[in-house]
Amino acid sequence: MPPKTKATVRADIASRKQAFVREEILASATALFAERGYRAVTIDDVAANLGYTKSVVYYYFKSKNEILWQIISRIFDSFLQKIMVITEQNLPPDEALSKMVRQHALSVMENPQWTSIFNKEEAELDPTQRRQVRRMKRDYDALFESVYEAGVAKGLFRKIPSHVIVGGALGMCNWLYVWYDPKGSLSAEQIADHFASILSTGCVERPAT
Amino acid sequence: MPPKTKATVRADIASRKQAFVREEILASATALFAERGYRAVTIDDVAANLGYTKSVVYYYFKSKNEILWQIISRIFDSFLQKIMVITEQNLPPDEALSKMVRQHALSVMENPQWTSIFNKEEAELDPTQRRQVRRMKRDYDALFESVYEAGVAKGLFRKIPSHVIVGGALGMCNWLYVWYDPKGSLSAEQIADHFASILSTGCVERPAT
Repeated sequence: MPPKTKATVRADIASRKQAFVREEILASATALFAERGYRAVTIDDVAANLGYTKSVVYYYFKSKNEILWQIISRIFDSFLQKIMVITEQNLPPDEALSKMVRQHALSVMENPQWTSIFNKEEAELDPTQRRQVRRMKRDYDALFESVYEAGVAKGLFRKIPSHVIVGGALGMCNWLYVWYDPKGSLSAEQIADHFASILSTGCVERPAT
Repeated sequence: MPPKTKATVRADIASRKQAFVREEILASATALFAERGYRAVTIDDVAANLGYTKSVVYYYFKSKNEILWQIISRIFDSFLQKIMVITEQNLPPDEALSKMVRQHALSVMENPQWTSIFNKEEAELDPTQRRQVRRMKRDYDALFESVYEAGVAKGLFRKIPSHVIVGGALGMCNWLYVWYDPKGSLSAEQIADHFASILSTGCVERPAT
């Protein structure tokens, strides 16, 4: 790498600072939206929460809607990436489904405020954003459904329509944002393991007795 | 029964009419709150949706908050009553749990708008109402947890902390308000049966193989 000029170093620092402030604003907005609801929060609140004036926030985001959109689309994308890492391993369907449920539960427990916002504030998105979110949801569900269907085809899973299984499994995990307590008696990993185990066991095709 | 006087008949009709209008207002508010969110809806909207003026609504409810409270507390009470009918039968824990999960899923699918409001608008209740809702939720969960614990004690269920099982089972059912489609390929009863079966099977204690 060529040695950096002073100007490049300054630009690097400025760009890192900007990225940092952007993240700070998104984190502040996430906490406030989750606590009070999107409509009840103003750009002033988001700024004041960080000791900034609202002009700082407007430098990074053109509107409250853009903040909401960034929150929703970026984190959903991280959920999707983590599931794709599993599906790309081409594991046997039973093993894959168990890992995917476990990962989804962990993603929710790592982002409970986000899951709350995602669940409650979809109506606040504009029509184009809503369409995009629905597409992302369909893609996400489809990853789970095709693994379940592959398992049914191999005789591993019970013949239950995959959208019912996936609606149930994701719902079980999504609801964690309501009750999961990081200070509770079980760790996120333990809860995720229990959920993966209950669902895998519950879906297994057994010989008639 | 003594013959009714004209005044009694008139009073009967008036009281039936009042009860009817009350229900109409609650149904209108439920639909609007679920669609647009509590904060975005005015008493005017609730009234206009029925072709009334807002003074009619104020005759029955002193505020928008009272409408929300009536919606939340009455329907939650109906959920609770239906589960208590099952627990009072003193069935074996595995049979009881399966019936309770099935019933909870059906209650959600019969009241998807309500479940959405209950889930999204708790922050809009006043502190006393919120405390009361939390107590109702604890009582509801406790009915499920004690059945699960009885099952563990009898060696029927896996030794998993009951709050994890109940959080998972209720979450699985609660999420139905997001995706259940009354015009879908499966009936509410079929979905409820699948959920009850997956969870019961997933919770069964099996001899080590």
